[in-house]
Amino acid sequence: MIVSGEHYRTIWMPDANTIRIIDQRRLPWSFDLIDLHSVADVANAIQDMAVRGAGLIGATAGYGMALAANEAKTMQELEALAESLIKTRPTAVNLNWAVQRQLTSIRSSDFDDRVAIARVGAEMIADEDAAACQSIGQHGLRLIQTMAAKKPGQVVNILTHCNAGWLAFVDHGSATAPIYAAFDADIPIHVWVDETRPRNQGARLTAWELSQQGVPHTVIADNAGGHLMQQGLVDLVITGADRVTRCGDVANKIGTYLKALAAKDNNIPFYVALPSSTFDVSLREGVREIPIEQRSGDEVTHMEGLNKNGHLETVQIVPCTSQVANYGFDVTPARLITGFMTEKGMCAASEQSILYLHPELIRVA
Amino acid sequence: MIVSGEHYRTIWMPDANTIRIIDQRRLPWSFDLIDLHSVADVANAIQDMAVRGAGLIGATAGYGMALAANEAKTMQELEALAESLIKTRPTAVNLNWAVQRQLTSIRSSDFDDRVAIARVGAEMIADEDAAACQSIGQHGLRLIQTMAAKKPGQVVNILTHCNAGWLAFVDHGSATAPIYAAFDADIPIHVWVDETRPRNQGARLTAWELSQQGVPHTVIADNAGGHLMQQGLVDLVITGADRVTRCGDVANKIGTYLKALAAKDNNIPFYVALPSSTFDVSLREGVREIPIEQRSGDEVTHMEGLNKNGHLETVQIVPCTSQVANYGFDVTPARLITGFMTEKGMCAASEQSILYLHPELIRVA
Repeated sequence: MIVSGEHYRTIWMPDANTIRIIDQRRLPWSFDLIDLHSVADVANAIQDMAVRGAGLIGATAGYGMALAANEAKTMQELEALAESLIKTRPTAVNLNWAVQRQLTSIRSSDFDDRVAIARVGAEMIADEDAAACQSIGQHGLRLIQTMAAKKPGQVVNILTHCNAGWLAFVDHGSATAPIYAAFDADIPIHVWVDETRPRNQGARLTAWELSQQGVPHTVIADNAGGHLMQQGLVDLVITGADRVTRCGDVANKIGTYLKALAAKDNNIPFYVALPSSTFDVSLREGVREIPIEQRSGDEVTHMEGLNKNGHLETVQIVPCTSQVANYGFDVTPARLITGFMTEKGMCAASEQSILYLHPELIRVA
Repeated sequence: MIVSGEHYRTIWMPDANTIRIIDQRRLPWSFDLIDLHSVADVANAIQDMAVRGAGLIGATAGYGMALAANEAKTMQELEALAESLIKTRPTAVNLNWAVQRQLTSIRSSDFDDRVAIARVGAEMIADEDAAACQSIGQHGLRLIQTMAAKKPGQVVNILTHCNAGWLAFVDHGSATAPIYAAFDADIPIHVWVDETRPRNQGARLTAWELSQQGVPHTVIADNAGGHLMQQGLVDLVITGADRVTRCGDVANKIGTYLKALAAKDNNIPFYVALPSSTFDVSLREGVREIPIEQRSGDEVTHMEGLNKNGHLETVQIVPCTSQVANYGFDVTPARLITGFMTEKGMCAASEQSILYLHPELIRVA
C-alpha cells in the first residue's frame, strides 16, 4: 500500500541477515522502519507488538524462521528457536501455522539447504499473504457493489473493528481489502473506525491507513457502534480474525463479539475477512477451545499520545488503587456471522460451507 | 458517602447564594470543591460536566432554580433562567423534571415568596434523590442476596457501565446502591467496571468511588464485557439510566445497549436502577423518540491523565487527519432488560409493570 506516495509492504528482507519492519508502536505519530537481526529480535517484535495482526504475525514468523535457519547448527536448535517464536502470542493461529510450514519444508530436505529453503519459504508465505488479501478484496468488492446498487447515489457505510488492514498483513489487509477495492472502483464509501481499546489499533492504525489512501472515515468510541446500527448508519460490518474454528467461531480483537451481537439485532450483514491460513480446523467450539491471551494491565491504565508540545507522552488514566484486567480477544460464535470472505471466495459460517470452499484444509488436518 | 473517611453529598448549599459541588472533572486525581454563585455558573457546571449523572443533574437544576429565584425580578425572567438550565443537556430527563417542579411550586404561590420556596424545593429534590437511591439499594440488595445464596462461599460478580454511582446522584447512587448495600451486608462481591469511553467515567469515577468505600473491583476496557459474560465471570449487570420511556426503553451512556445484548445472549440478568423521576412517560419508543446528545469530538481525540511527573496532562490520541463522532448515549430496548430497580421496588420492563408500580407517573403525565 501507499505511505506518503511510496509503495510499501509491512515486512521484507533487504539482505539474508536482516528483516525490516514498520514499527507499528510508533504509528500514526511517526513512520519508522526497524531492522531485526536475530530470532530474539523477531520474538521481541512480535511480543511487544512492533508487528501485530494475523497475517503479519505469520509472515514475521516465516521470516523469523529464515533467521533461525542461519542461527541453528542442528535441527534440535532450530526447533528450540521455532518454539521461542510460537510462544510469543497464544491466540493467533498464523504464527504456529507459518513456523510449522517452515519446519516441515526444512525437515523434508537436506539440513545443509536449510538457509535457502527457509528464505524461499518466507518469501512464499509473504507473497501468498499479499495475494490472498488481494483476492479477498475482489470477492468483497462484489458484495459492496451489490449494496451500493441498492442505494444508488448514497454512501455505503462500513464499520470495522481493530486493524485488519494492510498493516495487519503483508499488503492490502483482510477487512480493508474490499474497502480499498471499492474505493478504487469509485464506489462512494465511508468507514466507521472503532477506536479499539485498550491498544487503540483502530484510532492509531486503521485511521492512519485510511487517511494515507484517502478513504473517508470517522473514528468512534467502541461503545458507539450499537447506536449507529440502531439509527441505520451502518450498512455492513467487516472485521478480521485471529483464529477461526472449523465450525466458524471467530477469535478476534476483544469487542468484536459485541459488534456482531448488535449487527444481528439490527439485521446488518456481519462479515469476517481472512486468508484461509487463519482457519484452525483442529478446533470446533471457539468459546471453549480457543486460548485467549491476557495482556499487561498497563495497556488499560496508560495511554500514549502527543502532548501539547507535540512530543509523545504516556499518561496514567486509571489510578493505582484499582485492579485492571486486559483480555486481548473474544470469540464471536458462528451463528452471528453472515459469512466469511477468503481468497477462495465467500462462504457461510458453517463447517460444511467452510470445508467445501477450502477442501485443502481437510488434508492439512 | 465516604471520602477519605468523611461523609459527603455531591451537592449542597452552604448559604443562600452559594451552591457547593465536587468538581467531577478533576476526579480521581484531585478532590476539589467548587462554589457556584449564579445561574450561569450552574449552567456551565452542567454543560462542562463538573456535575453529571441523572440524579445529580436534576438536583443541580433544583438548586440552580434557587439561585434563579434570587436573580429573577419577574416570572418572565425566572422562566428565561429556567430555559437556560434546561438547554444545557438534551438527553437527561431529570433536568427538565426538576426545573418544571420548581417552576410549578413558585407559580402556585406568591411571587414574593419565590426565594424561600425554591430553596425548600431544592432541598426536597436533593433529599428525595438521596432517599430514593437508598431505597433502590435495599430492593437491589434482596436480588444480590438471592444470587449469593445460589453460589454459597463464592463471590457475586456484578458488571456496571459508566458511573451510576453516588457521584451521579446526591448520595448512594442508583446502580451502586445495591452494591454498597451488599458490601455492607458482608456479601462477597466484586465489580467489573467498564472504562466507559470516551469520558472514562467508569475508570475515573466508579473505580474511585468503589476504592473509597473499599469495594473489590476491576477496571476493564468497554470491549471486554462480552468475553467475561461468555466465560461465566459475570452474574449480574446493573446500570443506571438517563431517561426511560413508559414502555421501558432505556437511554443510558453510550455502550449500554451492547452490554445488554451480551447479557441477553448469555442469560445473565440485566437490571437498570433508577429513581422513578427518570421515567419519561410522555415517550414510548426510545430508539425513535429519545434525543441523543452529540458531544465535542475532543472527548474522543484527547485523553487526560497523569504524566510521569504526576501532573495532569492532556494528550492527543487520534490524528487530526481523521474525522471523529461522539454520541453520548444509546437506547437499550425494553426487551433486553430483565427489570428495573426503583425506590418503589422491582418491576419488569413493560408499560403495565412500570405504571403498576408507579401509579403517580400517570397523574403527572
